[in-house]
Amino acid sequence: VSFAERLDAAVRAVESPCLLGLDPHLDLLPEPFALARDPQRPRAERARALADFCRRLIDLARGQVAAVKPQSAFFELLGADGAQAWEKVVAHARAAGLLVIGDVKRGDTASTADAYARAYLEGEAATRCDAITVQPWLGSDTLEPFVEACDRSGGGIYALVRTSNPGSDAIQRHGSPPLWERVAAELERLGSSRIGPSGYSPLGAVVGATKRAELARVRERMPHAPFLLPGYGAQGASAADVVDAFPDAAHPFRGALVASSRAIAFAYRQGEHAGRPWEEAARRALSAMNDELRDALARRARG
Amino acid sequence: VSFAERLDAAVRAVESPCLLGLDPHLDLLPEPFALARDPQRPRAERARALADFCRRLIDLARGQVAAVKPQSAFFELLGADGAQAWEKVVAHARAAGLLVIGDVKRGDTASTADAYARAYLEGEAATRCDAITVQPWLGSDTLEPFVEACDRSGGGIYALVRTSNPGSDAIQRHGSPPLWERVAAELERLGSSRIGPSGYSPLGAVVGATKRAELARVRERMPHAPFLLPGYGAQGASAADVVDAFPDAAHPFRGALVASSRAIAFAYRQGEHAGRPWEEAARRALSAMNDELRDALARRARG
Repeated sequence: VSFAERLDAAVRAVESPCLLGLDPHLDLLPEPFALARDPQRPRAERARALADFCRRLIDLARGQVAAVKPQSAFFELLGADGAQAWEKVVAHARAAGLLVIGDVKRGDTASTADAYARAYLEGEAATRCDAITVQPWLGSDTLEPFVEACDRSGGGIYALVRTSNPGSDAIQRHGSPPLWERVAAELERLGSSRIGPSGYSPLGAVVGATKRAELARVRERMPHAPFLLPGYGAQGASAADVVDAFPDAAHPFRGALVASSRAIAFAYRQGEHAGRPWEEAARRALSAMNDELRDALARRARG
Repeated sequence: VSFAERLDAAVRAVESPCLLGLDPHLDLLPEPFALARDPQRPRAERARALADFCRRLIDLARGQVAAVKPQSAFFELLGADGAQAWEKVVAHARAAGLLVIGDVKRGDTASTADAYARAYLEGEAATRCDAITVQPWLGSDTLEPFVEACDRSGGGIYALVRTSNPGSDAIQRHGSPPLWERVAAELERLGSSRIGPSGYSPLGAVVGATKRAELARVRERMPHAPFLLPGYGAQGASAADVVDAFPDAAHPFRGALVASSRAIAFAYRQGEHAGRPWEEAARRALSAMNDELRDALARRARG
């Protein structure tokens, strides 16, 4: 079964487009996981703390979200021990019935892209990702090995189409038409023969949630791509900013995942839940995000 | 000491611009390492074979090249065990006095880019890379954390400026001026305050070796960037194709590394050294590459 269909079913089961980012910033971890940032401790012990923190986050998100998005960089920071922690976290999420979108942002040519695709989408069943994020810079021939892996495994990809960091304009909006449109068109072309009953292909797009007008334009160009929208919460995007990514009034949660990581995991540090025990703060922040998105999408569905 | 200066000294010591790529394709490994591709074997055993193969390659290249370039994808294919193999290989190369350019092609925003930079350029001394390859798609603000890590650690980066795979034109040559020129200008700007006595900054560029005319244009736009040139050998580039990347007649090896991986490591499989024991074939292929490049650069230095 295609990733798009599995995602669609999972999102409808929880009635939520929330995607919980697992970005275990060493400097932000609460006790008793803070030892992960102590370079004097054995690295294996630090990595265990990282994994334990993520597993607790997964436990509190279970049933509240369809998917989690572990961020590879924070695991790679602890080398081979971090890679072991990554596998534990992915396995824990899968065992909890959550889809896993590996935020690995990989990209390379030919047989190397194939190796990355196999590593993340076709590894052992317990620790493989359901989808991963990929880089479009090397061109569409380098996306094809990922697409082929999706065909074999029922996995998905999210290509970085239009990000919201300040420096992205100079690259992604370069030329006329702006370059992101070319990437979008290429993904739509590759996806066109892979559209399932939900109306979506497994070839998705990462689109920053902070610029509402641009998000609507990307949706127009990519009607069949599942979107992954970072920028909610910590980066300032609100529910109103993301509604245009969900074009189907009959299925208000269909079409996109709205990611939040720091604003959930580290809600104990700042904002309205600051000062509470970290899990309670995270649970409240996630619940508030879910409420806000459900309200906005329901309002939109009513017209 | 800046990466550019360390590289320059290492290249002059061996009088060679060869960069040995360590791309342990599972399907191409010779005996007794071929067990690495057997999914029935324990993954840890497969990863050990991968590491052992790369260590033998490093041993035969010692003194012949300034640096090696392990390709992360083939290690990631074996998960946490592969990550352990990666660390063994990097440590072995460093202990052999070789510089290590980690071909990881990472790229992400803000604190995530910082985590990647710290992971590869500032990890434990035994297993850190001297430089890594990075993706420019997200814009120059996302290169800055890597540049800052270079400043702290004496490391380097090679950004993917102009690659030679067929799909790259649609992205990298998009617009007017072609987008790669914008990336090149940005790297030169970032590098301008970091140029050492050799005339180079630690902010390098990956440029495909297969298109001679374009390589000369990139060199013109990036006079202070060390180049990393893939495409030699297996992909068809010759010594004549790469000479324009070396602009300094007084120091004929200064300015670029010419990478070859499959054509060396797997020389036992095809070409003029096919049929020989794999290490002998690899040693001969590497030696032939060195001779060809030295001849071409010496001819050019003489005018």
